[in-house]
Amino acid sequence: MWTRYETIVFLIIAIIEVALFVWSDQVIQFPFTPVALIGTAVAFIIGFQSNSAYGRIWEARQIWGAIVNSSRTFGMMAQDFITNEHTKNPISEEELQNERKIVIHRHIAWLTALRYSMRQSKPWEYVMREHTNKEWAKKIYVPEFNEDFDATIKNYLTEDDFKYLSNKGNKQTAVLYLQSNHLRQLKERGLIWEFSFLELENVIEELFTHQGKSERIKNFPYPRQFASLMHYFTWIFLLILPLAMASQFGEIAVKISDKIGSCPDWIIWLSVPFSMAVMWVFHTMNRIGRVGENPFEGSANDVPISTIARGIEIDMRQNLGEPKEDIPAPFEVRNHTQM
Amino acid sequence: MWTRYETIVFLIIAIIEVALFVWSDQVIQFPFTPVALIGTAVAFIIGFQSNSAYGRIWEARQIWGAIVNSSRTFGMMAQDFITNEHTKNPISEEELQNERKIVIHRHIAWLTALRYSMRQSKPWEYVMREHTNKEWAKKIYVPEFNEDFDATIKNYLTEDDFKYLSNKGNKQTAVLYLQSNHLRQLKERGLIWEFSFLELENVIEELFTHQGKSERIKNFPYPRQFASLMHYFTWIFLLILPLAMASQFGEIAVKISDKIGSCPDWIIWLSVPFSMAVMWVFHTMNRIGRVGENPFEGSANDVPISTIARGIEIDMRQNLGEPKEDIPAPFEVRNHTQM
Amino acid sequence: MWTRYETIVFLIIAIIEVALFVWSDQVIQFPFTPVALIGTAVAFIIGFQSNSAYGRIWEARQIWGAIVNSSRTFGMMAQDFITNEHTKNPISEEELQNERKIVIHRHIAWLTALRYSMRQSKPWEYVMREHTNKEWAKKIYVPEFNEDFDATIKNYLTEDDFKYLSNKGNKQTAVLYLQSNHLRQLKERGLIWEFSFLELENVIEELFTHQGKSERIKNFPYPRQFASLMHYFTWIFLLILPLAMASQFGEIAVKISDKIGSCPDWIIWLSVPFSMAVMWVFHTMNRIGRVGENPFEGSANDVPISTIARGIEIDMRQNLGEPKEDIPAPFEVRNHTQM
Amino acid sequence: MWTRYETIVFLIIAIIEVALFVWSDQVIQFPFTPVALIGTAVAFIIGFQSNSAYGRIWEARQIWGAIVNSSRTFGMMAQDFITNEHTKNPISEEELQNERKIVIHRHIAWLTALRYSMRQSKPWEYVMREHTNKEWAKKIYVPEFNEDFDATIKNYLTEDDFKYLSNKGNKQTAVLYLQSNHLRQLKERGLIWEFSFLELENVIEELFTHQGKSERIKNFPYPRQFASLMHYFTWIFLLILPLAMASQFGEIAVKISDKIGSCPDWIIWLSVPFSMAVMWVFHTMNRIGRVGENPFEGSANDVPISTIARGIEIDMRQNLGEPKEDIPAPFEVRNHTQM
Amino acid sequence: MWTRYETIVFLIIAIIEVALFVWSDQVIQFPFTPVALIGTAVAFIIGFQSNSAYGRIWEARQIWGAIVNSSRTFGMMAQDFITNEHTKNPISEEELQNERKIVIHRHIAWLTALRYSMRQSKPWEYVMREHTNKEWAKKIYVPEFNEDFDATIKNYLTEDDFKYLSNKGNKQTAVLYLQSNHLRQLKERGLIWEFSFLELENVIEELFTHQGKSERIKNFPYPRQFASLMHYFTWIFLLILPLAMASQFGEIAVKISDKIGSCPDWIIWLSVPFSMAVMWVFHTMNRIGRVGENPFEGSANDVPISTIARGIEIDMRQNLGEPKEDIPAPFEVRNHTQM
Repeated sequence: MWTRYETIVFLIIAIIEVALFVWSDQVIQFPFTPVALIGTAVAFIIGFQSNSAYGRIWEARQIWGAIVNSSRTFGMMAQDFITNEHTKNPISEEELQNERKIVIHRHIAWLTALRYSMRQSKPWEYVMREHTNKEWAKKIYVPEFNEDFDATIKNYLTEDDFKYLSNKGNKQTAVLYLQSNHLRQLKERGLIWEFSFLELENVIEELFTHQGKSERIKNFPYPRQFASLMHYFTWIFLLILPLAMASQFGEIAVKISDKIGSCPDWIIWLSVPFSMAVMWVFHTMNRIGRVGENPFEGSANDVPISTIARGIEIDMRQNLGEPKEDIPAPFEVRNHTQM
Repeated sequence: MWTRYETIVFLIIAIIEVALFVWSDQVIQFPFTPVALIGTAVAFIIGFQSNSAYGRIWEARQIWGAIVNSSRTFGMMAQDFITNEHTKNPISEEELQNERKIVIHRHIAWLTALRYSMRQSKPWEYVMREHTNKEWAKKIYVPEFNEDFDATIKNYLTEDDFKYLSNKGNKQTAVLYLQSNHLRQLKERGLIWEFSFLELENVIEELFTHQGKSERIKNFPYPRQFASLMHYFTWIFLLILPLAMASQFGEIAVKISDKIGSCPDWIIWLSVPFSMAVMWVFHTMNRIGRVGENPFEGSANDVPISTIARGIEIDMRQNLGEPKEDIPAPFEVRNHTQM
Repeated sequence: MWTRYETIVFLIIAIIEVALFVWSDQVIQFPFTPVALIGTAVAFIIGFQSNSAYGRIWEARQIWGAIVNSSRTFGMMAQDFITNEHTKNPISEEELQNERKIVIHRHIAWLTALRYSMRQSKPWEYVMREHTNKEWAKKIYVPEFNEDFDATIKNYLTEDDFKYLSNKGNKQTAVLYLQSNHLRQLKERGLIWEFSFLELENVIEELFTHQGKSERIKNFPYPRQFASLMHYFTWIFLLILPLAMASQFGEIAVKISDKIGSCPDWIIWLSVPFSMAVMWVFHTMNRIGRVGENPFEGSANDVPISTIARGIEIDMRQNLGEPKEDIPAPFEVRNHTQM
Repeated sequence: MWTRYETIVFLIIAIIEVALFVWSDQVIQFPFTPVALIGTAVAFIIGFQSNSAYGRIWEARQIWGAIVNSSRTFGMMAQDFITNEHTKNPISEEELQNERKIVIHRHIAWLTALRYSMRQSKPWEYVMREHTNKEWAKKIYVPEFNEDFDATIKNYLTEDDFKYLSNKGNKQTAVLYLQSNHLRQLKERGLIWEFSFLELENVIEELFTHQGKSERIKNFPYPRQFASLMHYFTWIFLLILPLAMASQFGEIAVKISDKIGSCPDWIIWLSVPFSMAVMWVFHTMNRIGRVGENPFEGSANDVPISTIARGIEIDMRQNLGEPKEDIPAPFEVRNHTQM
Repeated sequence: MWTRYETIVFLIIAIIEVALFVWSDQVIQFPFTPVALIGTAVAFIIGFQSNSAYGRIWEARQIWGAIVNSSRTFGMMAQDFITNEHTKNPISEEELQNERKIVIHRHIAWLTALRYSMRQSKPWEYVMREHTNKEWAKKIYVPEFNEDFDATIKNYLTEDDFKYLSNKGNKQTAVLYLQSNHLRQLKERGLIWEFSFLELENVIEELFTHQGKSERIKNFPYPRQFASLMHYFTWIFLLILPLAMASQFGEIAVKISDKIGSCPDWIIWLSVPFSMAVMWVFHTMNRIGRVGENPFEGSANDVPISTIARGIEIDMRQNLGEPKEDIPAPFEVRNHTQM
């Protein structure tokens, strides 16, 4: 169904060209061999392109997988590194647990800032703007398009932290600067051993790395030329094809005439459905060859960053020992599509 | 034998189409060149796809190889880092050995939780649901489908640990949080030197990474469009092929008639076995192009995670010095298939 | 529009060859099958080459992404590692902040030196020298071509540092040597804890790595043979093509004559536009196959290193707490092109 | 010479099929276009497969290269980390040197255990079982097939160590556990500084990683389906080819008859040598596409692990200062083949 | 010019085969379709092979880029880690500077040993032995072929160090052992802080890694079968091609005869230049597909290791503050070729 629109376009093109062929008494036609050459070249280039596009979405998924891993490590260390062991001014277990909670919630704030920034629309993200996909978009639920950023992130930050962010360009970077600053204070109070502090700084370095990689994929599109010229190539092929296909069926008609004296007209018209089949194969190859080019724009085939971020949150807060009712539920899944 | 079902389908398709060709006095046919173009395009795309699928199973194998390596390192460190050297309250060698055993057994519990979670069925895992594979499934032994998870993991955990897991979503993560917590207590008692503790935390970070990568491959399928459209392309090709093949043999028949005046009928029917050979090549290419897409679902070509996990267990417990009779045997191999 | 020049060339070639074909009464022609073979081979090789070229620009973008990440980490550490905690001679918070500022501004000086060195013209960088691109170059703004290096870097360095650079070959390396030397002095004064100093040295090691990788891509071009021979292959193909295409339309003309007794002359001339379409496809494939080969030369498709470097500067100085009016604005974007 | 057997098989196939073609008065033949399609598909798939196979042998070589690097590092550290600097009970320089020697010889024992385990025969390693390769195998010298494991490894271990290994499944893992244990004892005696000990443990972790990667390549074969089906595809192609080639020469014969009235019989028979040439190309492509699949089985194209291990041994013992006469010579090279 | 020799060979082959075709009255010919199939297969395999070869030279360049980075880091650390800060027996700044100089010069000695060892000739390095390249070799300047090793390395080592190397197999390894030993002595004298010493040992570990990787590429050639069989395939194709091309022009001649009654003889001979064009394309593809296979042998397309090593030397000594006149100039560039 999602190619209904294209199907009609292909049908019209094929009918017009075959009609032209028939009407001109087979004068207007195109030899098939050059078409086969273009077709082979196009298939080859699509193969490489689709490899690169898949490479992008797979890298995006790896980055968010790495965010999961670093988050779990960070949660583990926050729990076992914030202790009274080295301090001269011990505080109560409750106060310790509170510090841990601030640190872990700030980490979730970072995740939140990151996922909202990944969902911002970029000029080269086209999938959601395409005709057939707009309808689809109404059927899925993208949290970042429906929930307010400020209201969401406020849940995970202190008043001061929230204010600090207000005039910063890159919120997620600023959150990590705050995190580091807080950890340093804990270290200076002796609540984190100095070498444990260095370990935690290393984990924050990792988080900077994951964040930067994710931003890189978001901000550096697959070269526009590759994508748009591929588009033109495919259409050149699609436009010439029916004329060449008609020519092939014209030859069959000649053979039949030779044999049985005449040939039914509809033989030529068989080239319409067969042209459409080949057109559909090439058009679809091109289309799916681009799946994954922009893996964060909010379409159904994206990396499900909202779901991943929420999963991390649930995991970290369960292991922090927060009561069940405080922990949010996973995001709703609509139409079997995780976002 | 495993393509018996397809063979029959191909035979029927080929016979019907060739019969149509003969019955219509060669009016219904299809030129071969466009078919060759589709065939080339399909072969090419299958090539790329099979490369990606192999990439997935190979990455899965690398991850489980890395789990082996980190486990051996962890075992070595557990033995040489848990000592009386820095403590003010030394304990007996027996008690030390007992702590080591708890730590190492908990590591095996983590392995167990991970392998069970890798075997959970996902909607996009299709191999075990296919017709011919169901019979096969009965002949192999997948431990995770036959042994109860709770009963199995209980062997490696203390009562308290086991209870802690009960209300956690991701069991394997929770086990590592427990591990870290226990190591921290040993450190606070002086049984692990503080810097050794940091090293052990780093190994746990590695384990989180391996676990997360394994979960990523499990949970992020190869894009469904690639797989299912490839399927359609192959079938479009298969359906058109016999008509085009018949057309080619039709031309041979004409040549023979030209030469010797007439042509035996069975020449045309030769296109049936030859069509089937080509169909079989393309169908099988597509089929094996998908091997490895979902490398943990429990089919015969998977990464043998049960065997690997059991191998690690045997290795670690042998080197811990446990008596031979306590250590389990490797899992049974049925039909030359390790799981 | 950007292929206007080529379009005219193709038109002339195609007209001359088809005219020759017509004038010689179809004696001068070329069979299409060998042309198709060359075309397929060329398409293959272009596919592989374009893969490598994309690999280069993508690696370049990864390196500059890594520079972003390491810069953020360095900024964070500069702020949280330069403290009075371990010193015997504490200094005022203002003085501390001043030391941090010197360190961070010197880091920006390193970025500046690096981006200027990346923009130096190399003999094998051809894009900006090509005909149609020269016009284009006037419409974009490359900061490094318009702003003086000395004047720019002076803003970020002390007098002494600036003088030190004057007789050094590789400025960016020298800046990092200065950075390390300064950090060591801070460590000897106790303003940086000794182990924090080691961490900072490790970050500088990372910066050396990123710098070296960026220089490697700049200085080691994609093998010239690959590029220039690809060029020849494509032109051999383009030059033979119209003669072969005319031959194909000649065959069509024969078929038409056979059928309707005569054939209009313009049928042959149809091979001109069709040749041009195929020529355009192959020429453009070759052209875009080279996009990204030299990702720093200052063309529109480059890695936008000026923008990235300025973005890092804004980020670091905002988080250092510098007043808004001191921080420079992002570079101007002309014609939707970031540099 | 190594394809003598295949050459005869191809000759027989080609002669039989061409004879059939001639005998049946050209009735039994096969159109070439479908054969070309299968050939193209097979070439594609072989290309991809050979890429993967080369990837395996190259990775194997990288791993053993990494073993060289880590061994050199380990040797360097063993020499400069085992000192009297931090001990309260200094020992003589001779005794120190003796401890270093034990450690380094145990490392060579690990290398020995690893290379013997890499040479164990696996069910899927087929090269050495093939007909023509068996003769060849007699001409090369594989040390692991000719020298006894126990006798060899005994040279590098103390009595106790050797006994410890006897009941362990994975000898190389057990050696590293022994190594770690010994280093820990040296640390507890103060002969290794505690932080140097951690560094050494990290090198052992690296060794576990290299060992595990090497075992992974040994134990996880390239999916059998890919290999065996590729085999079938190639043979389907090879079996059909001569019939199609004969058909092409049949057409030439017709053209000649048209022109000069008759056609010599041997024209058809020219298809025999030409078929053989094409068959040889495809068969050899498939054959070399599999080179490297199992890079440790002991064939001439393997990674030369015996030579590498011996090279490391010589290097380490030279730098330890052992007398020249104690150090073994490199393994003998027979028929220009390093093992 | 560099294919002058091949051009003549191709001309002779093409003329002989076309003459045979003409002389035999078109009886001796070859159908083009099987040739196209071989051509496609060969092009495809060359594509993959050239990808691997480029991968080798690119990896080699990455390794030497990494050597640059580690060298800069090592230089920086040598300067900022060798200090009086932790020693009980401080020495003068001059003496300190002298120790730094010894260490840095020894590093340059390592570079020197490495680049000489990379230039040693191997049996499988063929480029410099080929006919046309021998002339070329006289026009470039490879320092390692013109300057004596002992005389060169002596400049960077003390007498004792130089003597130590004399009986060592792998000079570069031995230099690093010396380096580590010297650093350890500095540490024991307190001139290097103990943890800084560990950092420096880690840099030496990196150097071992780079050296080992470089040696791996040098010593493990691209599998000989791939290269030599590719050669045979290309030549099979080249030898058959003119006969098939002549056959195609023969068909054109027939068409012309049909049309205008007779056909000029030179039409057939047109197949000679066109054959040569296609032969040149395929031969050159194969040739450049191998560029980079052996990236250190001393040909014009190699990784310029001499230039890189000299560049590092200049950089390090400038930053050490050595007087300008002591520092050597870059190696001479002849014929625009850096070595």
